[in-house]
Amino acid sequence: MKKIAIFAKVHDPRCQGVASELIAWLEARGLIPLVEAHLARHLGGRQGIVPEDIPVLADMAVVLGGDGTLISAARLIGSRQIPILGVNLGSLGFLTEITLDELYPVLESCLSGDFQVTERMMLAVSVERSGEEICSHRVLNDVVINKGALARIIDMETEVSGIRLTTYKADGLIISTPTGSTGYSLSANGPIVHPSLECITITPICPHTLTNRPIVLESSSGVTVRLRSKDEDVYLTLDGQVGMELKCGDAVHVRRAAHRTRLVMSRSRNYFEVLRTKLKWGER
Amino acid sequence: MKKIAIFAKVHDPRCQGVASELIAWLEARGLIPLVEAHLARHLGGRQGIVPEDIPVLADMAVVLGGDGTLISAARLIGSRQIPILGVNLGSLGFLTEITLDELYPVLESCLSGDFQVTERMMLAVSVERSGEEICSHRVLNDVVINKGALARIIDMETEVSGIRLTTYKADGLIISTPTGSTGYSLSANGPIVHPSLECITITPICPHTLTNRPIVLESSSGVTVRLRSKDEDVYLTLDGQVGMELKCGDAVHVRRAAHRTRLVMSRSRNYFEVLRTKLKWGER
Amino acid sequence: MKKIAIFAKVHDPRCQGVASELIAWLEARGLIPLVEAHLARHLGGRQGIVPEDIPVLADMAVVLGGDGTLISAARLIGSRQIPILGVNLGSLGFLTEITLDELYPVLESCLSGDFQVTERMMLAVSVERSGEEICSHRVLNDVVINKGALARIIDMETEVSGIRLTTYKADGLIISTPTGSTGYSLSANGPIVHPSLECITITPICPHTLTNRPIVLESSSGVTVRLRSKDEDVYLTLDGQVGMELKCGDAVHVRRAAHRTRLVMSRSRNYFEVLRTKLKWGER
Amino acid sequence: MKKIAIFAKVHDPRCQGVASELIAWLEARGLIPLVEAHLARHLGGRQGIVPEDIPVLADMAVVLGGDGTLISAARLIGSRQIPILGVNLGSLGFLTEITLDELYPVLESCLSGDFQVTERMMLAVSVERSGEEICSHRVLNDVVINKGALARIIDMETEVSGIRLTTYKADGLIISTPTGSTGYSLSANGPIVHPSLECITITPICPHTLTNRPIVLESSSGVTVRLRSKDEDVYLTLDGQVGMELKCGDAVHVRRAAHRTRLVMSRSRNYFEVLRTKLKWGER
Repeated sequence: MKKIAIFAKVHDPRCQGVASELIAWLEARGLIPLVEAHLARHLGGRQGIVPEDIPVLADMAVVLGGDGTLISAARLIGSRQIPILGVNLGSLGFLTEITLDELYPVLESCLSGDFQVTERMMLAVSVERSGEEICSHRVLNDVVINKGALARIIDMETEVSGIRLTTYKADGLIISTPTGSTGYSLSANGPIVHPSLECITITPICPHTLTNRPIVLESSSGVTVRLRSKDEDVYLTLDGQVGMELKCGDAVHVRRAAHRTRLVMSRSRNYFEVLRTKLKWGER
Repeated sequence: MKKIAIFAKVHDPRCQGVASELIAWLEARGLIPLVEAHLARHLGGRQGIVPEDIPVLADMAVVLGGDGTLISAARLIGSRQIPILGVNLGSLGFLTEITLDELYPVLESCLSGDFQVTERMMLAVSVERSGEEICSHRVLNDVVINKGALARIIDMETEVSGIRLTTYKADGLIISTPTGSTGYSLSANGPIVHPSLECITITPICPHTLTNRPIVLESSSGVTVRLRSKDEDVYLTLDGQVGMELKCGDAVHVRRAAHRTRLVMSRSRNYFEVLRTKLKWGER
Repeated sequence: MKKIAIFAKVHDPRCQGVASELIAWLEARGLIPLVEAHLARHLGGRQGIVPEDIPVLADMAVVLGGDGTLISAARLIGSRQIPILGVNLGSLGFLTEITLDELYPVLESCLSGDFQVTERMMLAVSVERSGEEICSHRVLNDVVINKGALARIIDMETEVSGIRLTTYKADGLIISTPTGSTGYSLSANGPIVHPSLECITITPICPHTLTNRPIVLESSSGVTVRLRSKDEDVYLTLDGQVGMELKCGDAVHVRRAAHRTRLVMSRSRNYFEVLRTKLKWGER
Repeated sequence: MKKIAIFAKVHDPRCQGVASELIAWLEARGLIPLVEAHLARHLGGRQGIVPEDIPVLADMAVVLGGDGTLISAARLIGSRQIPILGVNLGSLGFLTEITLDELYPVLESCLSGDFQVTERMMLAVSVERSGEEICSHRVLNDVVINKGALARIIDMETEVSGIRLTTYKADGLIISTPTGSTGYSLSANGPIVHPSLECITITPICPHTLTNRPIVLESSSGVTVRLRSKDEDVYLTLDGQVGMELKCGDAVHVRRAAHRTRLVMSRSRNYFEVLRTKLKWGER
């Protein structure tokens, strides 16, 4: 562990401050901080690394910010699978469960090899148009097919491993990993799924058929959604961050990704504790 | 009852056929059919009436089609409050509960004055931008504030009769009449509200805060929603049919409309029967 | 305002302490505290009043405890409709929104006639067995028909003002006032209903038919539920406090009660504020 | 395959008729029908087999009736894991997806060894009282902890593999297999779980904390629920069929059972088709 990538919420002054301190801390120990290019520009006076190059160069990544920052770092790191240490600078996150106070102690443990990671399943998604794959991505949270605000309800013909499931008539469809289950899917009535379970959840958004309840599938399932609405105002959104327009007839294929995201675990809190805090399950 | 307005789903050949028959039937009885202009164009060889003129001229309206056709006729008729007879040509509707078989017998009863109407509350909605009212409408079903597919969650600061309710963080908000309760609101977890109860229901769409449950308010309440998101991709949709873009800072004001929609009631079925059929509550 | 009834959570030492203080405070002002008999026994050395006599004698009631204590006082007070001042000694309640700090200032305002009350609709419930009314009660929150833990799903044939609604197959049925909407009904997916709206909500508990969604009815509706299950393990519970066994064929009749509960309003908080606090809608 | 166990809904005359035919059909082919004792008594003139002996003797089982009949046969068969052919004589079941028309063709395929089975995960449950295991069972659908109708909300301290999850305050808790996900759990807002996924779902019944959403866990998780309510009216129900009273302090331990239920699959319909039919997802 010599080269440590640093990602941060670039517009947040507090994240910038912590990033500067962290760089100094690493250099003082003879380690090499690899600062993501946008962040480097905000910090000034330092050469940044093009995001795409980071996974190849780094041994580990530290993310300063919230779950959103970590999710975009995870998509970027992809198949290299280096451990990611997520530090929340505001409120506790589902993925960034390490506080600023814990940053340096946890980092020291990591550098000495004394740490545990939790592996998180990702999804691979591709879009097929007129028989050709027009794009492919990887997500840590979810793949969302969503209608525009003025469009009517959309028809989404859905197959699981080649077998017809149903044609959803809804505002949209969320296909999520266990990690994504506490995100958008939860707001749309999806269940909480423990991240150590490997599975794929389909949650319809405001389905016309009220009995179209969320469904949890084996992780080896291949989910294909074919857009059957002629309405031109339908979009695919990946992890709530990347979007593209879909056309009638497009098929969105979703399956488990070959690679996983590896998160450095906190020693002081576990998944259920994060759940209780974030969902305010506090015992009265 | 001399002048009978006719509205129909204009692109549906079956509706066109029934409209032609109905025109002949009325003329044979010395009555005057007022054919809405678009429909007249589809039927050919007949002068149509500009939709805006119909409420002033007609004594009653017959709607051939589904609930959508009736809702747009109801918005148009507005303050004139002439009785509307809704005929479904396909599946039973919540508003078009009269079947084609029943059309002429029910119409004869209406003409002889032997009919009952059910009055349905409507909502008046206006949008205020920079202190000025930029538009106002009337709806029978619902007022929906909705984010575009690629926008993030939106912040909607909501007041009821001048008292702060909360700032919803959600995909959108549905403000519905009892009539609208079995529409979009139901898909977003809203309750069924009997149409004889006068009230306003606020149903958040995929709220970030899971305890933001639908809330039912007195019909005399004034609901104001101020859009607090800078995101430029937020829309207002009225009865699922009319839309406009909203800007950050816009205030959407919703209150009970002064006028109601008057629907000719079926003698052969009641609201609960329609509910059981549409929601498939059939006793097994 | 001379005679002030005092109700309290009798087993709670803190409530007892406050009750003693309150008695002294009232007597020092030449007022007459009417102490409910169970409470008097716990306080010692004082003659209590039989609960049933309190409504006739008192000009006003102070309730020290939680919502449960207030609900049982409200049922008792019934048709006399004296104002009730609800003081929470622990966490904020939906009905007991006045804190201990506010007790004496609010009480002084009341005594000088300077206070506002909010009227809360109640339900009248009666049970008919073999054509005879075997009991009747009044509730402020809800009427619940519930199966025992080992019973199977029960069949509840339901009519609204003489018109068949449906036969619910469920664990039970909650018929609630707006006040009760934030109680048991909310846990069973019912909507929040503002207490100034007069209406009756039917919320099925774990219905077999997933589309059996909560339904909100006019307050003038009469709801009749006939138990059709032969299973002998079904109960009627009133406000979560009073219970009785039901038999197959029994009809439970629910309608708006002739009288209301009158609650002294807090000046420092309104219904929506209580909602935000209790449901943790806090703005992050 | 020589010895075929026969289970049927004993009080249903139609099931009795089919059972008699089936016995004759088997004997005509030189096979040995093993008729469950209660059923034998209803059929008359035939020696029945004590249910407990059936798993040891039979090579396969045919169940005539509904899902309930199959579930009780599955619990009985337990570790022997002989294939079960479920025939529905009324409406399609989730587990009894073979119709009467298909019975003999499917049976012939089975006898010639040409059939496929789907394996369904079961749960092993035991109750610990004062440090001792007082009972243990196996279920195919669910383990339910439920309060009696007159009891208040109960406190259930829940651990997953030794780590505290939360203390549920609710009417009860459903711990279900994927097979059980379309049963009671679905009525209590649980997700649909595909039966080929191995996992355990915890669904609270009417939880006091609205954010206590259903949670899906790895199948290797051990779930322990400790009853913390002094209320003496709490029960454990297994597959909706077997019940016992729980006492304050009792711990209910649930884990995946070592054995599975093996169901003969229909060739003419798949899981999603059954889902669409049972939940009325029909395409309009």
